[in-house]
Amino acid sequence: MDFIGAPDISHGVVERRFDVAGDSGVVPGILWTPEDAAGARPLVLVGHGGTGHKRMPYVLSFARRLVRHRGYAVAAIDGPGHGDRAQAELSGDRPPSAGIPREFLSSIADAADSMTADWTTTLKELRALDEVGTGPLGYWGLSMGTMLGAPFVAATPEVRCAVLGLMGTFEDSNPWTTAAARISCPVLFLVQIDDELVPPAKALALFRTIGSTDKRLHAHPGPHAAVPLEEVEASEAFLAHHLG
Amino acid sequence: MDFIGAPDISHGVVERRFDVAGDSGVVPGILWTPEDAAGARPLVLVGHGGTGHKRMPYVLSFARRLVRHRGYAVAAIDGPGHGDRAQAELSGDRPPSAGIPREFLSSIADAADSMTADWTTTLKELRALDEVGTGPLGYWGLSMGTMLGAPFVAATPEVRCAVLGLMGTFEDSNPWTTAAARISCPVLFLVQIDDELVPPAKALALFRTIGSTDKRLHAHPGPHAAVPLEEVEASEAFLAHHLG
Repeated sequence: MDFIGAPDISHGVVERRFDVAGDSGVVPGILWTPEDAAGARPLVLVGHGGTGHKRMPYVLSFARRLVRHRGYAVAAIDGPGHGDRAQAELSGDRPPSAGIPREFLSSIADAADSMTADWTTTLKELRALDEVGTGPLGYWGLSMGTMLGAPFVAATPEVRCAVLGLMGTFEDSNPWTTAAARISCPVLFLVQIDDELVPPAKALALFRTIGSTDKRLHAHPGPHAAVPLEEVEASEAFLAHHLG
Repeated sequence: MDFIGAPDISHGVVERRFDVAGDSGVVPGILWTPEDAAGARPLVLVGHGGTGHKRMPYVLSFARRLVRHRGYAVAAIDGPGHGDRAQAELSGDRPPSAGIPREFLSSIADAADSMTADWTTTLKELRALDEVGTGPLGYWGLSMGTMLGAPFVAATPEVRCAVLGLMGTFEDSNPWTTAAARISCPVLFLVQIDDELVPPAKALALFRTIGSTDKRLHAHPGPHAAVPLEEVEASEAFLAHHLG
């Protein structure tokens, strides 16, 4: 793990840009930890949404929240074709109300295995840091963060709990649905009932597929990107309940 | 309001059986208040489920919880044809997995107006008690407690928040759906995704109909009657957030 540049320290949160050598190239990431952190602590891995990146506003604010309120370590990496790994065809703007393009669904499906490998490599290197160590592990990722996160969570028994959602079971090839059936940790699943990209019936179908017996679904009015603060707070409380 | 018999006092909770003279006969109810309560406090009205009554186990335990944890007043009345107003055809056992009998749906629909009148009369008399007074008002009722509660909540602007659920929009005449569109207070709506009586798609349709902009749906695995403790706790927190 190579740290890039000087740490950024703001209001008690240390932010460090890192690169990890993945199986299929460099994996760019960010680690947030409390200032003066020493010793093992809970770690939350955050998967960003489609067309976003590891430091998109909601990732940044959620990471800072967990560090400041709970003293956790939080890490995010760019998804394949996103952020510092951008490819024009994946990170461009979408026309509004066009649904999720079929090519996007299939490209993310194709990337699921390599993203799981990237998270696994990143996790191993984060564990080697004194200020992260082998504390309890959680995952938080909505939309593309669920498409790419469910396979990682299913493949990683040490994940103690996961917040997923804003995604559904589509007829196209979707490794996240296959993976969901193999997830057994407690899950909080978020739904937007006016989601223009993921019909609630498809979201409910994915929720049903999740193998965990300890799972709950929280739904709110509004479009895909309008998850309310209430669920940011619920996410924090859910993670804290399971990670300590 | 006539109190029937001596108060029952247990672990700080005073339980009093009362009768109120309703428009269409005596309305039998129970009031729970903290021991030594004096002065106005939040009041929560609890609507019980079909085939149940005002002192069925979950009503009793939820009422005692709100009194002991929050110092609230809580009241429940028997639904038409239930409890001390029982009619054999409504309070009998149902065969499992038979769905909600069409006759039950239509009899409860027919009772909605008189139950709203009963709640309104009861509320007025409760308000006259020093230990209840004119504090903030909430409603909690699932299944039949929503069928008969949504019309009352819609007709009662002083209700500050409501917990509803385990009910849906059925094709039959259903005043609860009509009423839902007129509800504007914050709502927590509970769903069981394996509900053998209310298909989740119908529950989602009813949730969508609720007029409030401030509403959220929480869903869990399991059948109709298996609402987990987590949602009892969420109900208490939701009521406390709005009633103080």
